[in-house]
Amino acid sequence: MIVETKICNVTRPFALESGAVLPCIDIAYETYGTLNQAGDNAILIEHALSGDAHAAFFHEGDKKPGWWDLMIGPGKAFDTDKYFVVCSNVIGGCKGTTGPASINPETGKAWGLSFPVISIRDMAEVQRELLSHLGIKRLLSVVGGSMGGMQALQLFGDYTGMTDSFIAIATALKHSAQQIAFNEVGRRAIMSDPRWNDGDYYGGVSPEAGLSVARMIGHITYLSEQMMQEKFGRSKKTANIKNVFKPSFEIEHYLDYQGISFVKRFDANSYLYITNAVDNFDLITSLSGPTRTCGKNRARGKVVDLGSKKGLVVTFSSDWLYPPSQGRDIVKFFTALNVRVSYTEIETDHGHDAFLTDTGSLTEIVKGFLSGL
Amino acid sequence: MIVETKICNVTRPFALESGAVLPCIDIAYETYGTLNQAGDNAILIEHALSGDAHAAFFHEGDKKPGWWDLMIGPGKAFDTDKYFVVCSNVIGGCKGTTGPASINPETGKAWGLSFPVISIRDMAEVQRELLSHLGIKRLLSVVGGSMGGMQALQLFGDYTGMTDSFIAIATALKHSAQQIAFNEVGRRAIMSDPRWNDGDYYGGVSPEAGLSVARMIGHITYLSEQMMQEKFGRSKKTANIKNVFKPSFEIEHYLDYQGISFVKRFDANSYLYITNAVDNFDLITSLSGPTRTCGKNRARGKVVDLGSKKGLVVTFSSDWLYPPSQGRDIVKFFTALNVRVSYTEIETDHGHDAFLTDTGSLTEIVKGFLSGL
Repeated sequence: MIVETKICNVTRPFALESGAVLPCIDIAYETYGTLNQAGDNAILIEHALSGDAHAAFFHEGDKKPGWWDLMIGPGKAFDTDKYFVVCSNVIGGCKGTTGPASINPETGKAWGLSFPVISIRDMAEVQRELLSHLGIKRLLSVVGGSMGGMQALQLFGDYTGMTDSFIAIATALKHSAQQIAFNEVGRRAIMSDPRWNDGDYYGGVSPEAGLSVARMIGHITYLSEQMMQEKFGRSKKTANIKNVFKPSFEIEHYLDYQGISFVKRFDANSYLYITNAVDNFDLITSLSGPTRTCGKNRARGKVVDLGSKKGLVVTFSSDWLYPPSQGRDIVKFFTALNVRVSYTEIETDHGHDAFLTDTGSLTEIVKGFLSGL
Repeated sequence: MIVETKICNVTRPFALESGAVLPCIDIAYETYGTLNQAGDNAILIEHALSGDAHAAFFHEGDKKPGWWDLMIGPGKAFDTDKYFVVCSNVIGGCKGTTGPASINPETGKAWGLSFPVISIRDMAEVQRELLSHLGIKRLLSVVGGSMGGMQALQLFGDYTGMTDSFIAIATALKHSAQQIAFNEVGRRAIMSDPRWNDGDYYGGVSPEAGLSVARMIGHITYLSEQMMQEKFGRSKKTANIKNVFKPSFEIEHYLDYQGISFVKRFDANSYLYITNAVDNFDLITSLSGPTRTCGKNRARGKVVDLGSKKGLVVTFSSDWLYPPSQGRDIVKFFTALNVRVSYTEIETDHGHDAFLTDTGSLTEIVKGFLSGL
């Protein structure tokens, strides 16, 4: 099936959690399946750091489907014969939704670093805006892995009244010092690249070298130590004689390739804004503090009967970026709020990437959870 | 006590494992204690990636002692009242021993990338050269942590006849794919810095930004996840308003500081040469393959009665860079060669850095081992 990314233009000002206001925003999104008459079969999928609105099926002419095609489609975990699935690109991103590479209508130039700081809550708010635009008043579930899981938890926590359940995969309530540290080194690599030029590189050459290093660091954390060893070990390709420090081990070539392919499809400033949002995400504080948004149907307000809500938390045994212990913290937090939370740790050697690559058990678990709603 | 780094000038050509020949080399070293009449109380200490010959005591005017002062001195693990302790800077380094920042006498210019590739065996050979210069024919023990442990094992394996024992701490027989990956990202950060200029930056501005990122990555792997969390957690310093992506979390400031202080004392090309040597180190292959050096008293030749030799392997429970499993692999390898190997895993939350910072248990274990020789 061929799909395309659509754009929802929000032409009125959009206020962010920081207090800053964007004069207007675009929201890139895709939908799969059909919203039923009762309007109660919608599932919102949230993407991870480098994802986008294209979660499933094929774009015209593409050889690769969307990033979660293994999970979304007829008969799959998110069965498009049953559910109406929505996925949108996050605010601050670079795949159609307004971000630092977008044109600031007030200056006619790319925002760059004048783009306001964004948060995970802002990402969730933008998605709620999209749902409203699509006429979706209620979500059967809000779902995400990694940073997507953070958005899912934020949206569920902020708007429990409109959300029957959440599915949070390989994610956390907040980043640990080590998780912040990995992101910080990536940001530093970008900002150390002279081509970054304080974020003002649009129209010129982008800081590809720095972004590439950032992505290489990321990839180390996405794979388990064991899988990296099995896949690459100490195997070598022919060494480069002119410069011995060029990649020679297979793992070096792999990281090199990941870096190069990433810079073709991602904006360095978006990487800064999005990782900053992830590092500053702290769900418990966020749900207990004062916010600009309406609190009527929030989990923290306990206006809603949370006992009717369900959650599913999934972790992967070899995920050392978002280890199972962080998944169990999510379970504890929502269980204490009376939400009925299920928890599964999937045995796999795929590491953090398992939510994208090792979807066999995940499919069965998600199917079971959704059918029980 | 005040000490100073001395230089041993080797004025004849020095052949490297690659076949390349250096016209002459300098070896920077320090010694502590006194070689006894029998000449059987010498201990060689090998430093890690960013270490140097200054292992203990104070240089004139310094406020900080050498890098392993907790372990070396009167009454300490390496008791300088009993033992004659030697430590030298590795070949390829930048602290007095010949490396890429040294002047090539044939051109009058810094070697840069024309410096030949070096190996862990080359480091061990240079130390043997120094021992010869110092009149030391026999070592009571050869000792090192991290990369220092690799050199210790190489020297013990290559010259078992002159070495009574080894102490290998937080190290490995060879790097895994993940260990190579972390080093590769560091190298890439350096080589992506335009100031690196293919290694030709001496006399100009050095690639500090790239080297700093490399060091930041390293520091993440040196600390345990737990200790980083306890030490920094999610604490913040005042945010930088002009650029929100400047460090704000304490962990970011810590990494920033580590990066900045490192570039003042380390050469970027040395970082490339040394990490390359570490990644290519493979002790078992190295001891079983043909080599240029005399094989008479090698472990692999089994000419020496290895049953009279002892080894001590120490790992740290929270060291995820060189995890205990790699220490146990060292034990297995040398035990199979008939060496009497002791093994201890020290319970600590200090991570890989424990060999430098959490030396209480280590001191007792090393003392016990040395007294049993």
